[in-house]
Amino acid sequence: MPVINVDSDCFYDKGTFLPESGPGGNVFIANYHKLGIMIDISDKDIVRRYAKASGRIYLKKETIETISNGKVRKGDVFTSAKIAGMEGAKEAWNRLPYCHQIPLEGVDVYIELLEDSVKASCSVIAQWKTGVEMDALSGVTSALLTVWDMVKYIEKDDTGNYPETKISDVIVETKVKGHA
Amino acid sequence: MPVINVDSDCFYDKGTFLPESGPGGNVFIANYHKLGIMIDISDKDIVRRYAKASGRIYLKKETIETISNGKVRKGDVFTSAKIAGMEGAKEAWNRLPYCHQIPLEGVDVYIELLEDSVKASCSVIAQWKTGVEMDALSGVTSALLTVWDMVKYIEKDDTGNYPETKISDVIVETKVKGHA
Amino acid sequence: MPVINVDSDCFYDKGTFLPESGPGGNVFIANYHKLGIMIDISDKDIVRRYAKASGRIYLKKETIETISNGKVRKGDVFTSAKIAGMEGAKEAWNRLPYCHQIPLEGVDVYIELLEDSVKASCSVIAQWKTGVEMDALSGVTSALLTVWDMVKYIEKDDTGNYPETKISDVIVETKVKGHA
Amino acid sequence: MPVINVDSDCFYDKGTFLPESGPGGNVFIANYHKLGIMIDISDKDIVRRYAKASGRIYLKKETIETISNGKVRKGDVFTSAKIAGMEGAKEAWNRLPYCHQIPLEGVDVYIELLEDSVKASCSVIAQWKTGVEMDALSGVTSALLTVWDMVKYIEKDDTGNYPETKISDVIVETKVKGHA
Amino acid sequence: MPVINVDSDCFYDKGTFLPESGPGGNVFIANYHKLGIMIDISDKDIVRRYAKASGRIYLKKETIETISNGKVRKGDVFTSAKIAGMEGAKEAWNRLPYCHQIPLEGVDVYIELLEDSVKASCSVIAQWKTGVEMDALSGVTSALLTVWDMVKYIEKDDTGNYPETKISDVIVETKVKGHA
Amino acid sequence: MPVINVDSDCFYDKGTFLPESGPGGNVFIANYHKLGIMIDISDKDIVRRYAKASGRIYLKKETIETISNGKVRKGDVFTSAKIAGMEGAKEAWNRLPYCHQIPLEGVDVYIELLEDSVKASCSVIAQWKTGVEMDALSGVTSALLTVWDMVKYIEKDDTGNYPETKISDVIVETKVKGHA
Repeated sequence: MPVINVDSDCFYDKGTFLPESGPGGNVFIANYHKLGIMIDISDKDIVRRYAKASGRIYLKKETIETISNGKVRKGDVFTSAKIAGMEGAKEAWNRLPYCHQIPLEGVDVYIELLEDSVKASCSVIAQWKTGVEMDALSGVTSALLTVWDMVKYIEKDDTGNYPETKISDVIVETKVKGHA
Repeated sequence: MPVINVDSDCFYDKGTFLPESGPGGNVFIANYHKLGIMIDISDKDIVRRYAKASGRIYLKKETIETISNGKVRKGDVFTSAKIAGMEGAKEAWNRLPYCHQIPLEGVDVYIELLEDSVKASCSVIAQWKTGVEMDALSGVTSALLTVWDMVKYIEKDDTGNYPETKISDVIVETKVKGHA
Repeated sequence: MPVINVDSDCFYDKGTFLPESGPGGNVFIANYHKLGIMIDISDKDIVRRYAKASGRIYLKKETIETISNGKVRKGDVFTSAKIAGMEGAKEAWNRLPYCHQIPLEGVDVYIELLEDSVKASCSVIAQWKTGVEMDALSGVTSALLTVWDMVKYIEKDDTGNYPETKISDVIVETKVKGHA
Repeated sequence: MPVINVDSDCFYDKGTFLPESGPGGNVFIANYHKLGIMIDISDKDIVRRYAKASGRIYLKKETIETISNGKVRKGDVFTSAKIAGMEGAKEAWNRLPYCHQIPLEGVDVYIELLEDSVKASCSVIAQWKTGVEMDALSGVTSALLTVWDMVKYIEKDDTGNYPETKISDVIVETKVKGHA
Repeated sequence: MPVINVDSDCFYDKGTFLPESGPGGNVFIANYHKLGIMIDISDKDIVRRYAKASGRIYLKKETIETISNGKVRKGDVFTSAKIAGMEGAKEAWNRLPYCHQIPLEGVDVYIELLEDSVKASCSVIAQWKTGVEMDALSGVTSALLTVWDMVKYIEKDDTGNYPETKISDVIVETKVKGHA
Repeated sequence: MPVINVDSDCFYDKGTFLPESGPGGNVFIANYHKLGIMIDISDKDIVRRYAKASGRIYLKKETIETISNGKVRKGDVFTSAKIAGMEGAKEAWNRLPYCHQIPLEGVDVYIELLEDSVKASCSVIAQWKTGVEMDALSGVTSALLTVWDMVKYIEKDDTGNYPETKISDVIVETKVKGHA
């Protein structure tokens, strides 16, 4: 069995937070172990945080038409995507292992119907110790996946595959720390 | 395809939170899109919030007797309903799309056995930027549904239906902002 | 310390599922312990199950008007309540401690705008070993609470209280076992 | 208040599942209401379903190097993304309002480190009544967002923004119904 | 950047489930990648599965007395632990990354008050393609942690630490495949 | 039906939080009802809280070897256990009925491979009104159960049982209130 001592140049060196592994302990500690953390933000200041992310789902012309005419069989695509997006933002801490539980103070999801795609944008705001861009991104992907789920029956080919459907351009548009 | 510009009298007009849709963008934006939000509370003060909600489930006399005698087959109705109620309060942000994630600081669920019904009350307290009445209401409905679930076998008729069972009178009894 | 032997007329007597408590064990076992269970349905047949539940939220005339005109500030009440209702049905096993995890095969939520109230109905269907009425009821309460949450700002009085708002008449309308 | 009767050419016309709204009921029913559903799959056959989705996150060269060298501060990117992806697949029913609860029978997440991006692929398999492509897509987006979250500190510019980071090319690569 | 071809002796070799990485692709694939999976159980038979797990929490005599007398401040320890245990069993798929979503068909939690400890046992039953021991173990740990949480105020020393409290002996007592 | 008045020496006596049960109400109130609560912490100060918990899973020598050699079939045990542990800490409020929703500000999980066991430690930090030891304990049990789940195939005997596998020694190692 490999025996490796904990080395001393640990990335994470805040007093009480260090492993109490005494010197010479003959334990094997994988070297990623001491790096893998949900980072300690406890000493950071509470500041106003804002982030806006967006992304697109590329769809057939026929699908864009059907959405535009409000004829999608499962229901209203705009409000459905908006709600899935708000929930996606609020659930980021649960979906992404390294994300902190930030009590979000405002979430908005915009859905825009373009010529060849639907664009979803998600704005998130919170007074907290770390940024909210992952929350905004989680909102965007949930909104876009909900659009996909609702128009599956139009996008599918005869084999049940999706040769033209694609989610792309998922980016953080703006991130602001402190009052703008 | 309908082409509608974003109009300028947007309900939601806080600076950084607005969509950065430039002038003349030829995108279709459904008119509810710009109204549908988890409202921004980031600038509100942190204040003590208290809410108490309650509701009733109307049951057969035989069911009330069985609960009163502690003979319900699935177990203790009072504690079960209380726990489901506490969890319901803590989960309101997840169940209700527009609710904020409020870290609740106290939850209590009272179960009272009346002549013809069980009354569940849920009190919630938190120092936060928005009220906790939805959390209290979510607690009450979870507590009452748990009672229903536990006494199904007594309430059912021969067809498996519930001609007499009913949840009613779910109200917010008290809501207080600031110290009483 | 009270010492009570496990008595033998245990409610739950399926072979492998019984506690292996030998005779004369001098342990205290609270008498509800041996009754409190998520009931074993493993030997029941898989049958088509259908349930429809409904309930109402009583609102001000002004609120009904605002919903009817599509002017509610947080967005589209109908689709929002529908989605919260579908999610409430799918989450029943998680919200109600004694509910089984039934993979639901169809959920529909109907929202009707009446003179003095909004009525939400939730239909659930599944081929499974136990009924789906709790899932339908969980859907109804989530839909109604979402309506409440969205119209809070119209229903509130000057003190932030809700003298007229009330959820009532939550019932199981129909339950069917096997094909109708 | 608008008064609209339920029309009869309802999209959803399975017997027991229809709204029991009698003729001439003077209720307002929004026209999307009768279309908005988690579709009834109860009569479909249980068949082997397989889907593989993939997508990419475009990153700086420096970030690709750091991942390749196993030096990312929060820990092991490959296994972290894999686990978030598996969880994302299992949680699709909860994240996407119209998705069914499919008990997945196999999930795999592949992470490939390319010159300019990380590619995540997610394969899902289940014997069930509906396809698993949304589950695979949900897995892919969770895996890619986890990569983003872990390398934020390298991708950020001085203002905390991400001028080069982008998730793109999220597609369904293969979908198979029945044994291949 | 390291460049490694996918080798061919992949652990996981079911046709459709393999990565479609063509020969000679110059991608880096970490060697655990092709091993890390939620294992494919889709071809396994549906069989009756039963597992019973148990464990103990060691407590002060004073705490055992307080539980025995039903005087614990937060409420009824037995029912609380039982419910947390049932929920823990139903949530195993969500808590443990490699666990399948097994729709459990029966869960029971037994709580026994011993001289120096509380013993929690959790029995789980399901007709499914894989065993339910992780579900039973998840139930046991949730039940025991709930006991700890409820008696914290008695177990704590002056510094807020727990010199005597300990969860131990968490084992799978019985696992049965097929009818016993 | 038993009729019991609420007595006056209620454990929980903060003004607004008391049940508004008037004198002489002829309702049955189970005596645990007025004790069973998620305790009100709203008036407590926000203080730096740190807790470290740990526990062990005892395994076969063969299993320890396989982990040490990185040959476990489901993938990387160290990172998998770490992530399950971080998620377990963040989910404590949801798993344990009486736990508050504490937004954790730092979580670390250490995995050590010993001669006869794997030791998991979880450190949690937060500035909040109540301690974080339950969160740390929830992290430890999730990490240890994940190890068990991953090495099941090595630990099992011919009957599918686990004669040697055991989780023990789950304790709170350190708890600190305020800066150390």
